[in-house]
Amino acid sequence: MPTKIILPESELPTHWYNIIPDLPTPPSPVLHPATHEPVGPGDFAPLFPMDLILQEVSTERFVEIPEEVREVYRQWRPSPLYRAHGLEKLIGGPARIYYKYEGVSPVGSHKPNTAVPQAYYNAKAGVKKIATETGAGQWGSALAYACSLYDIECEVYQVRASYDTKPYRKAMIEAYGGTIYPSPSNNTEYGRRLLQEDPDTPGSLGIAISEAVEVAATNEDVKYSLGSVLNHVLMHQTVIGEEALKQLAMVDETPDFVIGCSGGGSNFAGLAFPFLREKMAGNINPVVRAVEPAAAPSLTRGTYTYDHGDTAGMIPLVKMHTLGHQFVPDPIHAGGLRYHGMSPLVSLIKEEGLIEAVALQQTETFSKAVQFAKVEGIIPGPEPSHAIAEAMNEAERAKESGEEKVILFNLCGHGHLDMAAYQSYFDGELVDYEYPQDRIDDAMSKVPVVAG
Amino acid sequence: MPTKIILPESELPTHWYNIIPDLPTPPSPVLHPATHEPVGPGDFAPLFPMDLILQEVSTERFVEIPEEVREVYRQWRPSPLYRAHGLEKLIGGPARIYYKYEGVSPVGSHKPNTAVPQAYYNAKAGVKKIATETGAGQWGSALAYACSLYDIECEVYQVRASYDTKPYRKAMIEAYGGTIYPSPSNNTEYGRRLLQEDPDTPGSLGIAISEAVEVAATNEDVKYSLGSVLNHVLMHQTVIGEEALKQLAMVDETPDFVIGCSGGGSNFAGLAFPFLREKMAGNINPVVRAVEPAAAPSLTRGTYTYDHGDTAGMIPLVKMHTLGHQFVPDPIHAGGLRYHGMSPLVSLIKEEGLIEAVALQQTETFSKAVQFAKVEGIIPGPEPSHAIAEAMNEAERAKESGEEKVILFNLCGHGHLDMAAYQSYFDGELVDYEYPQDRIDDAMSKVPVVAG
Repeated sequence: MPTKIILPESELPTHWYNIIPDLPTPPSPVLHPATHEPVGPGDFAPLFPMDLILQEVSTERFVEIPEEVREVYRQWRPSPLYRAHGLEKLIGGPARIYYKYEGVSPVGSHKPNTAVPQAYYNAKAGVKKIATETGAGQWGSALAYACSLYDIECEVYQVRASYDTKPYRKAMIEAYGGTIYPSPSNNTEYGRRLLQEDPDTPGSLGIAISEAVEVAATNEDVKYSLGSVLNHVLMHQTVIGEEALKQLAMVDETPDFVIGCSGGGSNFAGLAFPFLREKMAGNINPVVRAVEPAAAPSLTRGTYTYDHGDTAGMIPLVKMHTLGHQFVPDPIHAGGLRYHGMSPLVSLIKEEGLIEAVALQQTETFSKAVQFAKVEGIIPGPEPSHAIAEAMNEAERAKESGEEKVILFNLCGHGHLDMAAYQSYFDGELVDYEYPQDRIDDAMSKVPVVAG
Repeated sequence: MPTKIILPESELPTHWYNIIPDLPTPPSPVLHPATHEPVGPGDFAPLFPMDLILQEVSTERFVEIPEEVREVYRQWRPSPLYRAHGLEKLIGGPARIYYKYEGVSPVGSHKPNTAVPQAYYNAKAGVKKIATETGAGQWGSALAYACSLYDIECEVYQVRASYDTKPYRKAMIEAYGGTIYPSPSNNTEYGRRLLQEDPDTPGSLGIAISEAVEVAATNEDVKYSLGSVLNHVLMHQTVIGEEALKQLAMVDETPDFVIGCSGGGSNFAGLAFPFLREKMAGNINPVVRAVEPAAAPSLTRGTYTYDHGDTAGMIPLVKMHTLGHQFVPDPIHAGGLRYHGMSPLVSLIKEEGLIEAVALQQTETFSKAVQFAKVEGIIPGPEPSHAIAEAMNEAERAKESGEEKVILFNLCGHGHLDMAAYQSYFDGELVDYEYPQDRIDDAMSKVPVVAG
């Protein structure tokens, strides 16, 4: 069983950390999808309120968290840091393992860390309705929760395959007063076109993004919101790492490994960026490692190039590790990691050699998740099970080498809404996916070529 | 949104509170099911380890919590007390509303408060296997969690109707390494007899109890465990009320109402008993109220008499409010409240006039749960939604009368594993159940007549 390291409420972070001014090279500009010319803050105005646009392009190192947002954070923050005594005993060897636990939020994941400020800034700007997409449903339910706090309508486009097979997130979104549509839907031109071509299409996250963006772009009173990938989203998540830094200091520990799972990059960055700041400042020297599913291996097998974040190619081009915006990952249970791209900031720091990346198969991550649950009590979501598995692998390596390593990972959500996936695992129904390179090459051939 | 009132970890209770020595009249003796003679501690030895039997009959006011158990409690305790600012604003009026939140435990409910000490004392006695029953699955998953901590085998008999329709608790139990069987099963003589009579029987909690008890009684190396009803179980839950007393004192509040939902009685008693102690001592004077479902109205429509806790009549007779041990409640979604009887201690204090009881219909409780989720963020389980609904009703009455009432209730678990029930509610599929008196009379006619 674990030991809890509690950060007093008075130590709740007052600022988010923006890694951009500390990077060795600045991020590449965002390009207009048609002209391939750099876009400015004004180009985003139809989609986001100006406060969030300014955060997206900010070069301030620290951005103050509004007191109204901290008030909401305090419902579950500071979140606990746990010393994984049970896991250490199970593995044996000299490694000391710590994990930050974000499953204590009302929706059971880290997503409200950014959903709340996004809803707050929208409310401040007088926005009455926000459209967004969701895959398995974590982001959709987090945004619906946040919108309910500020009395904003929330319209969620959920990938049809998930909408049909995972009805429980739909019920959560409705409990928070949100509206949810299977995507592609008849609400958008893009959706209608796709349905006409194939009425039985299962949809994809890229398609759902295109629909939500279309709704916002074509309705003056509707804004758009994204749950990962963008700079301001990652910045909001840094409360995780800021708290963890203080909590580790309380027990006089310095991490040798900082590990997080990575789909769009937000929970990984949330934990890792404050530690990278300290690493770049020469104060600590941990290995920082992103763990992705072998079924969506953007960091380990993708190309660092300009690509669209959505399938329709409606949103601007960003430079990132991508498998191609037409790439549709196989149906692994870690729905939150099924994305063809990776956050531009996480991609850039990977290119700069500041972080490592590794890809794991889902049978391994579920097997390790079950071992973890038995000794630590918490049943993890399929996404953070990737981080758990890698932390366990690292602890095994420390055991072999006899080195006293300190391992920190992010347990970004519980698995209470993912028990069907566990049942599939127990029933022996889970399969692993390994992409043939030609399938990746095919998707990459559809990526726009950007000059320069 | 709510405000959190944090109790420092140093204030984690050191003792459980045993209400028995403070009661105006002692509890009625427990009677042998065949002879109707009082049973002694030794009669329970086949079912429970001696430490728990001694707690069951203890007349000490305070029983020390072993440090090993407190170590586990610290993973999620002290649990937060919240001031329900969102709910107060929604209702308007002068009431101040507080709730204790037990959904922060690894399994999302208050059940580990007793599952952990029960597993601990069994482990201490060298027990290698525990059998238990579960309805909707909350208790089964909590005991499987606790057993995994102490390396005890856990065998769970789940009511077949739930086993077939609610597979997610099964997956949780298996994640913790437990074994689960639909009840009635072929593992027991009683189960085989019932299956022979009717292979398609949906089972009932009373039947599942009979099976788990049979397994323990007929196997020397297997003990039995119950998740509610018994004195020691209620006593373990008093950590909830002890913490709440301190947390309310931190904000200088004295409750006018203490409210909890009640199926077997454990979460209600856990919150209420420490407040009743202070009430009996003349320090405070709250109305203490149990809320039950109209579909299983043992306290409001049952008879206070000797009856069996299980359907087969294998376990001793206890004096309690009962609807008859053959009574099978209609399939409401608050599975944790679907029980024909009520804890003897809760029944006794109800007879003594120390508490009130009220019964609510599920469409009302779901409707209020959704209102609550929108303003407080937490999606409650269907069981505590009964407490929420009654707290809201009381706040409405305070608004009408203009009285500045302080209302405290127990939010004993989150609803993340109950989203299918919410979906049924949103789809308009929920129905209310009102029992005709003759159905209760019929079940009561099968209750054994105890002389004296």
